[in-house]
Amino acid sequence: MPYYIYVLDREYRLLGVVSFRELFMGPAEAIVQEIMQSEVISVAEDQDQETVAAVIAQHDLLAVPVVDQEGRMKGIVTVDDVIDVVREEATEDIQKLAGMTALEMPYLRTGFLPLFKQRIGWLIVLFLGEMLTATAIGYYEQEIARAVVLALFVPLIISSGGNSGSQASTLMVRALALGEVRLRDWWRVFRRECLTGATMGAVLGCVGLIRILVWQGLFHTYGAHYVRVGLTVAMSLTGVVLWGTLAGSMLPFVLQRFGCDPASASAPFVATLVDVTGLVIYFSVANVVLL
Amino acid sequence: MPYYIYVLDREYRLLGVVSFRELFMGPAEAIVQEIMQSEVISVAEDQDQETVAAVIAQHDLLAVPVVDQEGRMKGIVTVDDVIDVVREEATEDIQKLAGMTALEMPYLRTGFLPLFKQRIGWLIVLFLGEMLTATAIGYYEQEIARAVVLALFVPLIISSGGNSGSQASTLMVRALALGEVRLRDWWRVFRRECLTGATMGAVLGCVGLIRILVWQGLFHTYGAHYVRVGLTVAMSLTGVVLWGTLAGSMLPFVLQRFGCDPASASAPFVATLVDVTGLVIYFSVANVVLL
Repeated sequence: MPYYIYVLDREYRLLGVVSFRELFMGPAEAIVQEIMQSEVISVAEDQDQETVAAVIAQHDLLAVPVVDQEGRMKGIVTVDDVIDVVREEATEDIQKLAGMTALEMPYLRTGFLPLFKQRIGWLIVLFLGEMLTATAIGYYEQEIARAVVLALFVPLIISSGGNSGSQASTLMVRALALGEVRLRDWWRVFRRECLTGATMGAVLGCVGLIRILVWQGLFHTYGAHYVRVGLTVAMSLTGVVLWGTLAGSMLPFVLQRFGCDPASASAPFVATLVDVTGLVIYFSVANVVLL
Repeated sequence: MPYYIYVLDREYRLLGVVSFRELFMGPAEAIVQEIMQSEVISVAEDQDQETVAAVIAQHDLLAVPVVDQEGRMKGIVTVDDVIDVVREEATEDIQKLAGMTALEMPYLRTGFLPLFKQRIGWLIVLFLGEMLTATAIGYYEQEIARAVVLALFVPLIISSGGNSGSQASTLMVRALALGEVRLRDWWRVFRRECLTGATMGAVLGCVGLIRILVWQGLFHTYGAHYVRVGLTVAMSLTGVVLWGTLAGSMLPFVLQRFGCDPASASAPFVATLVDVTGLVIYFSVANVVLL
């Protein structure tokens, strides 16, 4: 179904556009040139579909003509194609952000083997990355042997880094996809995330410290050095959350800069990246404050 | 800008629809009844916007009329509204899935305080949940003191559960949002995810076992009981990944069943849920196999 009538010259260059409504409502004796709009919004042949979707959405168009470098019309993209594109791209981004290859078919119509393959790949990659945590903790085995209490807070510390990191990366991936944030904004984002990360880290650190002091008061769980344990946890949390936030927010920019899809900066990917460094931060702080 | 001409009777009941193109192309002496299409796709007043978007996308419409229970026309929803709805809903889901309250404004236009508030809330909730891991490990302090090597694999085990869980939950959240999967499909999904989770767990378990055997061969890292250590890790991984996959895939159904938004089953939320149980699985296996 046609949406607009495009007016071309002999070389197929786009001169103007008339809607069926204008054609219908215009005076019967008018020639096309008089009723057409000569300011036509068009897209280039080599533009990616996300950009085309953004143009259509922004200008509330029913269709947009595609032109080559010489301004010759090559075809049109219609609004109903765009809805499908927007939905598919969102689904793809969502699946990538969860750390899996995007499915090509709806879930229930995807067979066991393709479903398995699209999930296990990233799981193995993440697993191999996460193995570095075993190596990292290995370096601190003696510290743990001296103060087993350190082992208690390992999941708490690293998951806080991972959570703040995946928040930050998802926020950036979506903002980049919607064009709300551009590559050149990275420094502005960096400064904002520094402030946000440090504040969030300090808040979680306080909550952690209070938790340890309360538990100590109630159950005497953490031994004689409980204040030092609390301070270690609080300081590590601040550092880990700040680091997670910065790493998570900058990774999508780095990926985009090097031509990769920012959506590859998935929550599990960022978490894995942050886990190893989080452990190093935690045990380094412990070495100074506790041991 | 009007998209179609709707034909109503005196009570504003919808009789048919004519496009401007049909009006323009039709014979000049035809009456409306002859050229109108009387099968009109319409939506009810109380339908949610996601459903309306799906109707428009599915039938490639430019606009859909909204009717009340007596079939009286109340208004229209146009395709360009729908694009915005689809984009906004996707953004909202993506942000929720990353464990934060959905932002109302683009990132760079959101002030520091609202940005901070929308992120810290969930971070604190997740942090409080994750504190249970400290309690859980606390129960196994003696086991760790006897075999410090156990502490090495804690992040690896729990992150594998979290990763497989967030894959599964995201897959379900999106499939539910797009209507690819419905509430009544839960049992079919459960069986598929059982199989997928067990297979993925077994694969990761094998990778983990091989890693430990190789490292032992190269660096003699894991002491005399390295085979038992390897088996503990491999068996725990299988269990944790299976549990993570099942918990992650079922949680969105449970949330939807009780009228909550399935997208609240965010990656960090599922990870936190799975972390505590993952630790219990790990240390229980260790108690049988290793200690």
